[in-house]
Amino acid sequence: MPTPVKVTVIGAGSAVFSLGLVKDLCLTENLAGSHVAFMDTDEGRLDMIHALAERYVKELGVKLTFEKTTVRQDALRDSDFVINTAGREYLHGEERRALHKKHGYYSGPNFGVNYLMNLPLIIEVAEDIERICPKAWLIQSGNPVFEGCTLITRQTGVKAIGLCHGHYGYFSIAKALGLDAQKVQWTAPGLNHLIWLTEFRYEGRDAYPLLDEWIATKAEAYWREREEHPKKYGLEDHMSRAVVDQYRRFGLLPVGDTTRGGGWWYKTDMETRLFWYGPTGGFSSDLHYGPWQEQRYRPIEQIRAVASDPSRSVLKAFPPQKTREQQVPIIDALTNDVAGRFQVNVPNQGALPGVADDVVTEIPALIDKGGIHRIQVNPLPRKIMLEVIQPHILSMEWKLHAFQTGDREMLVEGLLMLNAYHQAGPTTSYEQAKAYVDDLLSQPYEQEWASRYTDRKPSWAKVIERQRRKRP
Amino acid sequence: MPTPVKVTVIGAGSAVFSLGLVKDLCLTENLAGSHVAFMDTDEGRLDMIHALAERYVKELGVKLTFEKTTVRQDALRDSDFVINTAGREYLHGEERRALHKKHGYYSGPNFGVNYLMNLPLIIEVAEDIERICPKAWLIQSGNPVFEGCTLITRQTGVKAIGLCHGHYGYFSIAKALGLDAQKVQWTAPGLNHLIWLTEFRYEGRDAYPLLDEWIATKAEAYWREREEHPKKYGLEDHMSRAVVDQYRRFGLLPVGDTTRGGGWWYKTDMETRLFWYGPTGGFSSDLHYGPWQEQRYRPIEQIRAVASDPSRSVLKAFPPQKTREQQVPIIDALTNDVAGRFQVNVPNQGALPGVADDVVTEIPALIDKGGIHRIQVNPLPRKIMLEVIQPHILSMEWKLHAFQTGDREMLVEGLLMLNAYHQAGPTTSYEQAKAYVDDLLSQPYEQEWASRYTDRKPSWAKVIERQRRKRP
Repeated sequence: MPTPVKVTVIGAGSAVFSLGLVKDLCLTENLAGSHVAFMDTDEGRLDMIHALAERYVKELGVKLTFEKTTVRQDALRDSDFVINTAGREYLHGEERRALHKKHGYYSGPNFGVNYLMNLPLIIEVAEDIERICPKAWLIQSGNPVFEGCTLITRQTGVKAIGLCHGHYGYFSIAKALGLDAQKVQWTAPGLNHLIWLTEFRYEGRDAYPLLDEWIATKAEAYWREREEHPKKYGLEDHMSRAVVDQYRRFGLLPVGDTTRGGGWWYKTDMETRLFWYGPTGGFSSDLHYGPWQEQRYRPIEQIRAVASDPSRSVLKAFPPQKTREQQVPIIDALTNDVAGRFQVNVPNQGALPGVADDVVTEIPALIDKGGIHRIQVNPLPRKIMLEVIQPHILSMEWKLHAFQTGDREMLVEGLLMLNAYHQAGPTTSYEQAKAYVDDLLSQPYEQEWASRYTDRKPSWAKVIERQRRKRP
Repeated sequence: MPTPVKVTVIGAGSAVFSLGLVKDLCLTENLAGSHVAFMDTDEGRLDMIHALAERYVKELGVKLTFEKTTVRQDALRDSDFVINTAGREYLHGEERRALHKKHGYYSGPNFGVNYLMNLPLIIEVAEDIERICPKAWLIQSGNPVFEGCTLITRQTGVKAIGLCHGHYGYFSIAKALGLDAQKVQWTAPGLNHLIWLTEFRYEGRDAYPLLDEWIATKAEAYWREREEHPKKYGLEDHMSRAVVDQYRRFGLLPVGDTTRGGGWWYKTDMETRLFWYGPTGGFSSDLHYGPWQEQRYRPIEQIRAVASDPSRSVLKAFPPQKTREQQVPIIDALTNDVAGRFQVNVPNQGALPGVADDVVTEIPALIDKGGIHRIQVNPLPRKIMLEVIQPHILSMEWKLHAFQTGDREMLVEGLLMLNAYHQAGPTTSYEQAKAYVDDLLSQPYEQEWASRYTDRKPSWAKVIERQRRKRP
């Protein structure tokens, strides 16, 4: 017997995601009869995805119902699952990149202030859930998953799971090594965007020796091949020289978008980038950004074309195959006790050794109707903890404190002191960091979130009063 | 009834310190009849301080006996207290400064590799104590107190206390504010060299309002006066603009050599330094280093002059007054139950909230024959924890890991990623950090400690074996 649920999608205008969700729900009989509430502030996109979803279930003959609204609180009423995909990071992406460069930072996102724009919305959605549908699960599917989920789970009582795509990087690793991904067993814990392959087996045997052999005998040819025929390959290389160098340094292979990191010194200029990351120069380089945006928007254009032509078959355009997304299988597991192993972002609670309980880690978990059962993982090598995990936890705490107190100076200090962890290169003077923050926060398109950061100059007495807390 | 003890001084050639110790012992009747073993590898200095000490007790007519040796193990036999003042940081100080500058770092010590040269000796002394006189207290009085004491207390069972002078900075604060230091009650916890005035009372009343008033009405005149008459004042200003700016940022006043920090951007060039730190440009600037060295060596020359002339009265040259050092009062407290409050560096064990138990913090403690009784302190403001305490703990862990594994690449990575915490300015390229580390570690005078850091390139399999630890 199917168990219908109400699923609310915040930021439903993310058409590719929403269409995938509809497909997955259609193909999950356990959830037949479910109701999806699409919510977005962009009415045009909202109408489009709503109409498309209606056509999809009609053509496929399954029982799913839909509503649409621009009012978040309406969408949340009686919800069992809330998927928050909303984010503002792609709006004005070009302007932000230009601003980074103008102030002497590399083209990539500057982690010191990266994704700050999404924190207000993330916490507001969670607070609404706490008030309107407190029993609902929140599946946080927009960035920043790490900071956002840590904030949510500390500040509210909402049951939250963060999801991301990074761990699918193991497909690329398997492909490069010539392995059948279905026969790979893997574990890759860490923080979101920073996960490391602690277990890697192929047909039951340790596959690290296969990797070592590949590096010794085939890696050079692989890199040459990609340089010579860049168009044959995807935009991101999960087995680039930067990846292998990180493996050499740390003793474990970084997985998925972890490979984008490793140190700002891999990215000082295009020549350096081309060497370490291959012919696109790596994620968010000047050579990568355009094609990547195009790749992102191509399916959206396709969806738009089909949506605007009611005579076309939506099933033919978007065949009913399950996506690789985890949202619907997790909903099924929590609703119908269909146990599964997932890669989730939840408060650590002892799962990854050396990380505080209330910091959100990305770990494997068994999920069933009983909830989330963390699978404890082996410790990461101490060098990874010291050079990657702990610095990023510090950076997260720093960002959340600046967010919660509105301490604008702390954004500047973050650029000055945490620049090591940024993709965007080091800050070389106070004036540089200050001018960048001032310029960024004064952009008209940043006002919605930037206004919370003020350069308060409280009287000394008030500072003392506020900051000198007593031990209880 | 006095209780005689055996006190061993490692690095006894530090003549100013050793002479002070002799004076303090002479003036502590509880410890009459005690025996001091002077140990140093520099025989000339050793002979000098030994002869001087003999003359001192003879002239004063007190019962203290002395021995001297260049063999550490001999000096440790039957010791009750070991004071380790040894350190190599002042040897080749000029060469190191020149090396920093050659590679584009500012003149100050570069925290990424600073004091690494002393770690081998510090741990070797502790291991000798564990073997030869396991019941002895180790009073670690040489740098790096923070890293060294954390290493000792993690790796050995030795009872260790780290001591430093930084907290005496409250005298300078009191003086600037026109207060009688005797009537000041203060608490300043943190890490060694990074302590903050959490409690500050004058004649029983909160003295922060006096500080605020001083800043509002007198600070500018104070800074101008120092600029106009630099010779009238000491080399270090504990109420400089940098100090007041840190107070503004953090809400608490930094104490003692904490004031040297605050951010590398206070030190980018001499003009900037002069503004923030006054007419010497602050600790270890080009204007400060020479006079500071001179100030250090002047009393040593005086000691040498008196030592070389047996006809002179040592009592007249060095009148019998107690120093402000804590070593002898602590020995008295532990031996004769003369309870006192001290500023010590010991494993945190819950004293300062938010720091792990096995990290050495600088905190107040009551010491008596029962041992060290930590005085729990109020939490530091979260901004201080995030911007000062936690980054420095990370940096310490990083250094200890590199030290324990001999991972040379980690020194380079430290300069690249931890540069924010350095006094020496940011690293702007991989090549810069690599060349600096290579150059530093190849200096003949660094070989004793540098040889432990190797650029091992183990086979992949060995890396994996070593680094992929299993969860127990």
